[in-house]
Amino acid sequence: MSAEFRVEKDSLGEVQVPAWALYGAQTQRAVQNFPISGLKQYPAFIWSMATIKKAAALVHQDLGLLDANMAEAIVQAADEVIAGKLNDHFVVDPFQAGAGTSHNMNINEVLSNRANQILGFDIDDPKKPVNPNDHVNMAQSTNDTIPTALRLGALWRLDELVNTVLGLAETLAAKGQEFDHVLKSGRTHLQDAVPVRLGQEFNAYAKAIRLDAKRIEAAGDRLRELGIGGTATGSGLNAHPEYHARMVTKLMGLTGIELRTSDDLFERMQSMGDQADFSGSMRALCVSLIRIANDLRLLASGPATGLDEIRLPAVQPGSSIMPGKVNPVLAEMLNQACFHVMGNDHAVTLAAQAGQLELNVMMPIIGYNIFQMMDVLIGAVKAFTEKCVLGIQANEEKATGWLAKNAILVTALNPTIGYLKGAEVAKEAMASNRTIREVVVEKGYLSAEEADSLLDVRAMTEGGIFGGGGAGG
Amino acid sequence: MSAEFRVEKDSLGEVQVPAWALYGAQTQRAVQNFPISGLKQYPAFIWSMATIKKAAALVHQDLGLLDANMAEAIVQAADEVIAGKLNDHFVVDPFQAGAGTSHNMNINEVLSNRANQILGFDIDDPKKPVNPNDHVNMAQSTNDTIPTALRLGALWRLDELVNTVLGLAETLAAKGQEFDHVLKSGRTHLQDAVPVRLGQEFNAYAKAIRLDAKRIEAAGDRLRELGIGGTATGSGLNAHPEYHARMVTKLMGLTGIELRTSDDLFERMQSMGDQADFSGSMRALCVSLIRIANDLRLLASGPATGLDEIRLPAVQPGSSIMPGKVNPVLAEMLNQACFHVMGNDHAVTLAAQAGQLELNVMMPIIGYNIFQMMDVLIGAVKAFTEKCVLGIQANEEKATGWLAKNAILVTALNPTIGYLKGAEVAKEAMASNRTIREVVVEKGYLSAEEADSLLDVRAMTEGGIFGGGGAGG
Amino acid sequence: MSAEFRVEKDSLGEVQVPAWALYGAQTQRAVQNFPISGLKQYPAFIWSMATIKKAAALVHQDLGLLDANMAEAIVQAADEVIAGKLNDHFVVDPFQAGAGTSHNMNINEVLSNRANQILGFDIDDPKKPVNPNDHVNMAQSTNDTIPTALRLGALWRLDELVNTVLGLAETLAAKGQEFDHVLKSGRTHLQDAVPVRLGQEFNAYAKAIRLDAKRIEAAGDRLRELGIGGTATGSGLNAHPEYHARMVTKLMGLTGIELRTSDDLFERMQSMGDQADFSGSMRALCVSLIRIANDLRLLASGPATGLDEIRLPAVQPGSSIMPGKVNPVLAEMLNQACFHVMGNDHAVTLAAQAGQLELNVMMPIIGYNIFQMMDVLIGAVKAFTEKCVLGIQANEEKATGWLAKNAILVTALNPTIGYLKGAEVAKEAMASNRTIREVVVEKGYLSAEEADSLLDVRAMTEGGIFGGGGAGG
Amino acid sequence: MSAEFRVEKDSLGEVQVPAWALYGAQTQRAVQNFPISGLKQYPAFIWSMATIKKAAALVHQDLGLLDANMAEAIVQAADEVIAGKLNDHFVVDPFQAGAGTSHNMNINEVLSNRANQILGFDIDDPKKPVNPNDHVNMAQSTNDTIPTALRLGALWRLDELVNTVLGLAETLAAKGQEFDHVLKSGRTHLQDAVPVRLGQEFNAYAKAIRLDAKRIEAAGDRLRELGIGGTATGSGLNAHPEYHARMVTKLMGLTGIELRTSDDLFERMQSMGDQADFSGSMRALCVSLIRIANDLRLLASGPATGLDEIRLPAVQPGSSIMPGKVNPVLAEMLNQACFHVMGNDHAVTLAAQAGQLELNVMMPIIGYNIFQMMDVLIGAVKAFTEKCVLGIQANEEKATGWLAKNAILVTALNPTIGYLKGAEVAKEAMASNRTIREVVVEKGYLSAEEADSLLDVRAMTEGGIFGGGGAGG
Repeated sequence: MSAEFRVEKDSLGEVQVPAWALYGAQTQRAVQNFPISGLKQYPAFIWSMATIKKAAALVHQDLGLLDANMAEAIVQAADEVIAGKLNDHFVVDPFQAGAGTSHNMNINEVLSNRANQILGFDIDDPKKPVNPNDHVNMAQSTNDTIPTALRLGALWRLDELVNTVLGLAETLAAKGQEFDHVLKSGRTHLQDAVPVRLGQEFNAYAKAIRLDAKRIEAAGDRLRELGIGGTATGSGLNAHPEYHARMVTKLMGLTGIELRTSDDLFERMQSMGDQADFSGSMRALCVSLIRIANDLRLLASGPATGLDEIRLPAVQPGSSIMPGKVNPVLAEMLNQACFHVMGNDHAVTLAAQAGQLELNVMMPIIGYNIFQMMDVLIGAVKAFTEKCVLGIQANEEKATGWLAKNAILVTALNPTIGYLKGAEVAKEAMASNRTIREVVVEKGYLSAEEADSLLDVRAMTEGGIFGGGGAGG
Repeated sequence: MSAEFRVEKDSLGEVQVPAWALYGAQTQRAVQNFPISGLKQYPAFIWSMATIKKAAALVHQDLGLLDANMAEAIVQAADEVIAGKLNDHFVVDPFQAGAGTSHNMNINEVLSNRANQILGFDIDDPKKPVNPNDHVNMAQSTNDTIPTALRLGALWRLDELVNTVLGLAETLAAKGQEFDHVLKSGRTHLQDAVPVRLGQEFNAYAKAIRLDAKRIEAAGDRLRELGIGGTATGSGLNAHPEYHARMVTKLMGLTGIELRTSDDLFERMQSMGDQADFSGSMRALCVSLIRIANDLRLLASGPATGLDEIRLPAVQPGSSIMPGKVNPVLAEMLNQACFHVMGNDHAVTLAAQAGQLELNVMMPIIGYNIFQMMDVLIGAVKAFTEKCVLGIQANEEKATGWLAKNAILVTALNPTIGYLKGAEVAKEAMASNRTIREVVVEKGYLSAEEADSLLDVRAMTEGGIFGGGGAGG
Repeated sequence: MSAEFRVEKDSLGEVQVPAWALYGAQTQRAVQNFPISGLKQYPAFIWSMATIKKAAALVHQDLGLLDANMAEAIVQAADEVIAGKLNDHFVVDPFQAGAGTSHNMNINEVLSNRANQILGFDIDDPKKPVNPNDHVNMAQSTNDTIPTALRLGALWRLDELVNTVLGLAETLAAKGQEFDHVLKSGRTHLQDAVPVRLGQEFNAYAKAIRLDAKRIEAAGDRLRELGIGGTATGSGLNAHPEYHARMVTKLMGLTGIELRTSDDLFERMQSMGDQADFSGSMRALCVSLIRIANDLRLLASGPATGLDEIRLPAVQPGSSIMPGKVNPVLAEMLNQACFHVMGNDHAVTLAAQAGQLELNVMMPIIGYNIFQMMDVLIGAVKAFTEKCVLGIQANEEKATGWLAKNAILVTALNPTIGYLKGAEVAKEAMASNRTIREVVVEKGYLSAEEADSLLDVRAMTEGGIFGGGGAGG
Repeated sequence: MSAEFRVEKDSLGEVQVPAWALYGAQTQRAVQNFPISGLKQYPAFIWSMATIKKAAALVHQDLGLLDANMAEAIVQAADEVIAGKLNDHFVVDPFQAGAGTSHNMNINEVLSNRANQILGFDIDDPKKPVNPNDHVNMAQSTNDTIPTALRLGALWRLDELVNTVLGLAETLAAKGQEFDHVLKSGRTHLQDAVPVRLGQEFNAYAKAIRLDAKRIEAAGDRLRELGIGGTATGSGLNAHPEYHARMVTKLMGLTGIELRTSDDLFERMQSMGDQADFSGSMRALCVSLIRIANDLRLLASGPATGLDEIRLPAVQPGSSIMPGKVNPVLAEMLNQACFHVMGNDHAVTLAAQAGQLELNVMMPIIGYNIFQMMDVLIGAVKAFTEKCVLGIQANEEKATGWLAKNAILVTALNPTIGYLKGAEVAKEAMASNRTIREVVVEKGYLSAEEADSLLDVRAMTEGGIFGGGGAGG
């Protein structure tokens, strides 16, 4: 049997690399230097780096700077990476060298070795022509490819994320329509408040989520302006003058994603502001999702000892000890996913402010966290929508039952009898366990007819002034 | 002399109120209930609540629901509040009743008592006509006025904030132009990198800040859609059907601020998503400001023992013990202001996710923190711009001195001699303390002429491939 | 009339100072340089700096390094500051020069000018002997006095904070005893769960808060090791060899606070780890307080449309529009206070990690936020304890009413009939709106006597296996 | 070949389970319900749950509540899990049912099926005796096993974490000794300050890290008090009266970890305060690590264009484009790891405050994040210590070179010539590019001998007053 290892060389000297590995010396050093977490890079990161390398090879071929055979081999190798065929060769821990040099060299080495194979050279052939730095990384630097990959990788799933969120909004809106007739007590401060309809609550959730989707879309749009071509410090040293613009065009063509050139490649490299903002837009979504998940869990509380105004689908037994229990597991999962994503956002923000001079070397952890946020949100929102929201049922009997006991209906009498008399009536009704109608009529503040007209709960949910003459809605 | 206190009454009973105070029973209860911090409400909050009350009085007068005399008295009282004449009567701690009921009642009571005085009634006259709940608070609830005030109060200073930030961007850009000729070493990972010009660094700062300003503007724009008129739960109970739209128009007229009606008053009340997002946009600005302040402090480090490439204006002695020391105090202040503002943002986010059902009762602390963020950022960015950035001077001699020693210039030879030979030359140059030019020529990799042409540092900052024939920029 | 201003001089030149001001040139420069927030320093900061200056004067007098008359005058001036008589002369914004140089010079200048007055010299007498740097600041630097003041200022109110928190724990425990007999439904996932007693819930709250108090105490204890005497960089340059130890002893004597010397004055200056940890201990308290405030608001929800198991004291009318409403305002205030304090903690953490080499220049904002956290927590916890927790009443009827409807009581049958049959019984009971007892007997799984014995709810709250023979508790 | 799936049943009905799987219906439902992230549970979680189940089987066997054969089979199955042999059967996403019901059922099902196999029953044998709920989960609930597992799982690696951190402290201290003689310029505000020795800086780092280790140890110690035996709501329903104490003893025996019983099983279940605190102690460590990593990167900056006072080991080529570049990759990795861990801590805090009544259902995400924090910190600190700190070399020539140019040495003259003359001398020295000694003698403030004696830089780093007669150190 042949050796398990082969010897590779980089500018620091020799290093042993597994014989099967398409990666080379620098990747191997990174494996040894960073045995940190055992976690894997997100596919978005591998995909986007491979796509950049492919585009660069094509652009340099077009410009006559890269031999056509070599370019085609690199492109073919990149396509294999994009197809997920070489996943085992991406071995660098997410916690790695600043800026992501190790990840960049990982892809450079894998593509060069694979391209050499395609061109008929063995991996240990000293004459193999394709060099990871000079050819695959031609006119590139970690410093411009990684920030570009952070942008591309996020854009890769942007539509999926936005559509998933919009899907939740639509589902909530459909429930809003379905529940439009369900009268219930409003609650503010968790205390009895004037009536609303269950559908109004769900419509409001839908609107909040729709706004969040728009925010993510807008923040995502800012990612489209790429800094590729800045090379090492933003100046574009070693890149052809047309390289930046050609790369943007080529990447658009290859990915079908709308992209834009930039007027300042220095800023694109040193600033992670767009990433922090995009992360923040997902944080804003979480703020809404946490709130709505909490509300659903509260409205579905009980069933015997809680509000029980809605019923969530029972998707699994709720307890290992309490038979018959069914818990709001999807909503709870969503809460947890959002807490986690807000933690990711926190990491992104800390890393984004740590840029220094020409570069923010914290990019790998920014990328890892942003890709995780997107992945977790897509998964969590999808599951929550399909397995929870879609199947929510209103418990109308319970909802209207609560409402019947609610003395705060007295509020509708304000325009007629005033706030202070209203408070007097409400207190007496609560203390004596009678209805507002009964007390207000007994006290002679209103006739029975007036009271009936003013205390129409359905009308109350439609707003307007009751008893206020022509003004009422 | 008469009594120091008068007795007031609310729905819970009697309470002693200072005789001088325009506020009444409920404010007094809040003073007693919330002796928490001694901090004051921000003017933005008092201004916006008074403006809402004024607009409501005018709209109700127009609708024939409020007596003209009474309305005019309320308007006059509100104008006094807006002019800052009654500041001493706003006494509720920022840490107060959920939703801000206490603050709403504070303004209701002050305006009604002041309006009664204007109408010729003593503050303790039992016949005083204007009632805080029925007239000043007519068709309003804490639950729709406070979220509206949070929006208005932020919009009040939005232009000032955006313009202050843009002012910084312009000053940075002017410095970018001023320093365009200053050649210096780039630094990535804080390690020697290929050359840049000092002006390029400042231009990149300017662009980053400009993008932040745009983000704040966009997030601020989302605050323009008001929920006024939702009253207690979003349904608009007790509000005239035209009230919402008329209020938005009236508020626009009174304030000159662009505002929009909403299609969902429930969502406007229960969701603090727009506030969380606006807060997040200021957080994103802080990410840039912290980074830039750090960079300036680093570039100005020394002068004897640091980089000393720029000099910040000396605005005060730097040390109480080390004579002659001058510190980057404005940049340090900016760092601290940004850390504080990011703390505010954290509080906003926590509070924003804590909404329940029809209402988010955490609004007072959201408002307090957002108003503080705006105030601190405006003050800090203005001072930083005027007292620091404007007076920055380049230390060209030092900058170019550093560059002369930088072996990473070898990078420009990549397209000609390749990465691996480049590394060899760089190492030898560093080890023997010679220049790249010397070593590369000695090794016979380039002729002296080629080396001179390729190692032109000014050209390097303009990008392009050197020695690459016609391709070079 | 004489001039409104006098001219003062520092190492940067002349500056106009208000004639009435005891502060001098450097404070005035700071006022002009930092017109940021208009916020005030916390008393803890002014008190601790004055105390340090007083101790230093006494120590230097003892060491024969400072003239006795001068020392006594400085001590008398410091006592006036400590008594709060010179508050108007502390004018530097919390957002100021890094490390707090401006605040240190503010106290140096006020004390020297006041000491000069005490010694019979006018404030503008060129012969006034006491110099702010050479005498008041003798053997001190901003760099060691400010971190020491951050420690002292926190210790100043540490006992008050811990005792306030313990007071809440005791009040909760007293309620635990008071409510020990109140049987109620447990709720997990907000869903029906096996019974507990209301007292058990409150006892658990008490224990959690007691643990938080201990954590704060332990973190506070770590603040006692002072770094005074490190002077500019930790080396103690310009300080007498005995100065550090004498200062710690003197400060203990003056303040009655236990303090310790340090074996590494460099670390005390460059690290804000103890401050970050102390802040973190308050954050941990907030985690508990938020949770408990949320629980109380939930248990008190309704009264008509919520759980209504407890009643919180009605301390003010709950709504400006809904008559008769009473809200859980103290608990809501506590939530808000905690969100705010967690924001403060966030700022502290960001600032604490920003130290560089010999110093963390972000100390002023660390101090401001820590002092605010302590102040707000003391105020908020005190008010919450006294005005809310102390007056909580159990609504036993409601609590046991909920319990009667709870089918999860079936859990107690697990050891006898097994989980799967239990689930079958529970479902049938819920579906047919009958009791567990009824269904389980009807199905023949248990005799009526067995069922009665196993379904004793009081016994269930005492744990143990029911029907398990001798094993049951 | 037989079917790929078998049919399993739980209280909600039938479900298809892969034929190979040891898990059953409820795990399968969880797999279908939570296709969220594809991430894996940490070994600490699987280990601790298996250990709890093993201990419970043994305790119940001792108590005569569980058949010995069955108990032994469960124990054997648990041992296989603990040995990592059944990892493929733990398939529930970290984002799952609240409280971790799904994970608890996953282990219950795997252990019961494996125990049945051990007892000679096929996995689809309807007569298989061991039931996941009644036997493996006997006297347990998700609600007490999961919080116990969170504690155990953290304690599992607590010593490893603390020792890793202490190892860093020791390595820093060894460097402190090694560098004790290296004189260098202190820097405060990144500006020239009075001299220190490189060893003093490293000793201070060592002390800060040692304090952090102590904090983690103290916070970890609070995790030792277990709540096992509270079962569903803390009351211990269905658990033998001796179960709690026996379990704690048994777990100590099985794990060798010191553990304690609790006096309040309700609190142990509802409060995640200890977890939040433990997480906070790791956050405090990160604050120090970030600061120190930043300092090392700064001190190692250059080499040509930065401070270059220390050299970090070159472990891999620094740049894909700039030949010869070596970056501080381990320090950068550490920064990123810490930002990530602070994000984890943020998630933990958010989740910890979200407890409601008897339970905090957010436990799974708390566990996931805490286990990740420990794992990442152990990996990152170990690599940083071994591959970076251990190999740091001082560049003494550069360090003393900087010092020679530093005019702030004038500070040592304060006790002799005063602050104001000192500032005059320093400014003139800097402006005329002469030494302090030269200027101060020329001005006649000191004799040449006095100047030489006072300006001894080594002595300056040892503190004390120079020229102050007998007082000097």
